[in-house]
Amino acid sequence: MMPSAGRYWPALDQALREAITLAPQAPGFQRLLEYPMGWVDADGKATEESGGKRIRPLLLLSCAEAAGGSWQTALPAAAAVELLHNFSLIHDDIEDASPLRHGRMALWKQWGVASAINAGDAMFALSYAALTRLRGCVPDDLSLRALDIFCQANLDLTRGQHLDIRFETQPDVTADEYLTMIEGKTASLLAVSAELGALIGSGNDVIASHYRAFGFNLGMAFQIRDDILGIWGDPTLTGKSAATDILARKKSLPVLYGLERSPALRELYARESFGEAETREAVRLLDSLDARGHAASFERNYHQRALDALHAARPAEPAATELRGLLDALLGRIA
Amino acid sequence: MMPSAGRYWPALDQALREAITLAPQAPGFQRLLEYPMGWVDADGKATEESGGKRIRPLLLLSCAEAAGGSWQTALPAAAAVELLHNFSLIHDDIEDASPLRHGRMALWKQWGVASAINAGDAMFALSYAALTRLRGCVPDDLSLRALDIFCQANLDLTRGQHLDIRFETQPDVTADEYLTMIEGKTASLLAVSAELGALIGSGNDVIASHYRAFGFNLGMAFQIRDDILGIWGDPTLTGKSAATDILARKKSLPVLYGLERSPALRELYARESFGEAETREAVRLLDSLDARGHAASFERNYHQRALDALHAARPAEPAATELRGLLDALLGRIA
Repeated sequence: MMPSAGRYWPALDQALREAITLAPQAPGFQRLLEYPMGWVDADGKATEESGGKRIRPLLLLSCAEAAGGSWQTALPAAAAVELLHNFSLIHDDIEDASPLRHGRMALWKQWGVASAINAGDAMFALSYAALTRLRGCVPDDLSLRALDIFCQANLDLTRGQHLDIRFETQPDVTADEYLTMIEGKTASLLAVSAELGALIGSGNDVIASHYRAFGFNLGMAFQIRDDILGIWGDPTLTGKSAATDILARKKSLPVLYGLERSPALRELYARESFGEAETREAVRLLDSLDARGHAASFERNYHQRALDALHAARPAEPAATELRGLLDALLGRIA
Repeated sequence: MMPSAGRYWPALDQALREAITLAPQAPGFQRLLEYPMGWVDADGKATEESGGKRIRPLLLLSCAEAAGGSWQTALPAAAAVELLHNFSLIHDDIEDASPLRHGRMALWKQWGVASAINAGDAMFALSYAALTRLRGCVPDDLSLRALDIFCQANLDLTRGQHLDIRFETQPDVTADEYLTMIEGKTASLLAVSAELGALIGSGNDVIASHYRAFGFNLGMAFQIRDDILGIWGDPTLTGKSAATDILARKKSLPVLYGLERSPALRELYARESFGEAETREAVRLLDSLDARGHAASFERNYHQRALDALHAARPAEPAATELRGLLDALLGRIA
């Protein structure tokens, strides 16, 4: 749970629910949007769940406050980044053929690919509709700058996804290419969340750029931490079985490091069938190269840059303490 | 060819090409966007084709001028509506499993569903990126109103598509439900094209609403004309074989009229296999009910409303004559 979650949660939840009601009325349409938000089950019955951690909008609201503004003013933008995140999950699950999301059937698995593509498109449009609600709350010029920035993040997201799809069939992916991919796929949305919050909170582009750097580096560190957990994570803590990413032959950062250095690992990854034995052998090879230590050094590097950027931003309390707590919460899942 | 096409075409083409260059750089990404625009073939080689009729952006530019403004100022919005149209075609083709588009392989058929969903998303984001370029060309307040209107059209589009997907499995679709569907799927984008052009051209909401009504009714008439042509069109003029919509068992307006009135047609449409003989029989049943005349009366009605709205808008010359020419061109394809 994000440190600031308690304070912002009720207003954020309400803003999200209002944003979804902007969807045009049509039989069965609302459910396709409420289900991925986690509010209803497949039969349309209300759930007790919170529907995800809402990291991006909570980050945005914290940054708005830390930059000296009112977090309430930033609620339309907070709703927008969460809706954009959910749009991308809906489409990613189709593109990756992932049947599950948050422990439930993915939208496409539940209602078919056609409906899921279209519901994702609606969620996409709703994210812009939410953002246009800044109009009247902040100066017009600021609304337009926010839209520009949001659009750019959105494009970065599609670039990251393009590279991710491409990597599946690309024989030699370099670590640099991988970092470019996660910049788009993970870091861009955290970067824009922090930037938009700070821009709305301060109206100052320089301050906003520090927060952007904070969010970006936080996102990079977060993704690399996730890569490490996908191989060496403790299943009782992560909720995944150990080495799931290896079993799926995911080309994450530690794996790419290993593939560049170990012909044996390359041979293993090229095999037609890949099961438990191959997974164990791959982890052994990665361990012998200290691929984990290599990835951890990248993570520390991005983590430090995030701290430096936050320091440069001179955030106000109590949001400043919460943002540092967020870094710890996101990056401290294993010792 | 739209009457105004010659005047606007070179600048519009340039605006579209510039809009696509806003896509982030990544290997193979530009081609996925240039191909559906009709500029390159599957190998990335430049084509001689124009890439579609560009009806929506040309309508937008004509309306900007007819409403008393400069069409050049409206170019960012013209690019935006064309990109949004292309986004919707890319996703529609996946949702309908249509293998062909403009006589070429559909994007998903050429590069796979995952890449096509993502390329559609990029086109979607680019349409907003194009629209945000209004900033600096028109007052900030007008840019924001334009974004609001664009967003709403975008949501209408997803509602229309939702209904269209739903109708495939819905046993009894009423004519009213069908009209609601085409309002979203066809009319909303023509409505917003006319409205945005007029709003940018005049800055006046009342004038813009007349143009909106013009575009909306034009879109409705256009779709119903298309429905008629899909059954009774002359193959040598339409480029489709006659009664293709019947062979595909499409629930278009004349068919819904027939299904409501003819148990024999309902029985025919419910058959497991449906070939040439069933198609001929279905057309015979529709003819006996004068389903064509019924649909034509709807078309005339929307056509008249479009003319009335255009009259109320008091359009300036020469764009006014061009807009009337556009009505004739779009609706006069058969006598």
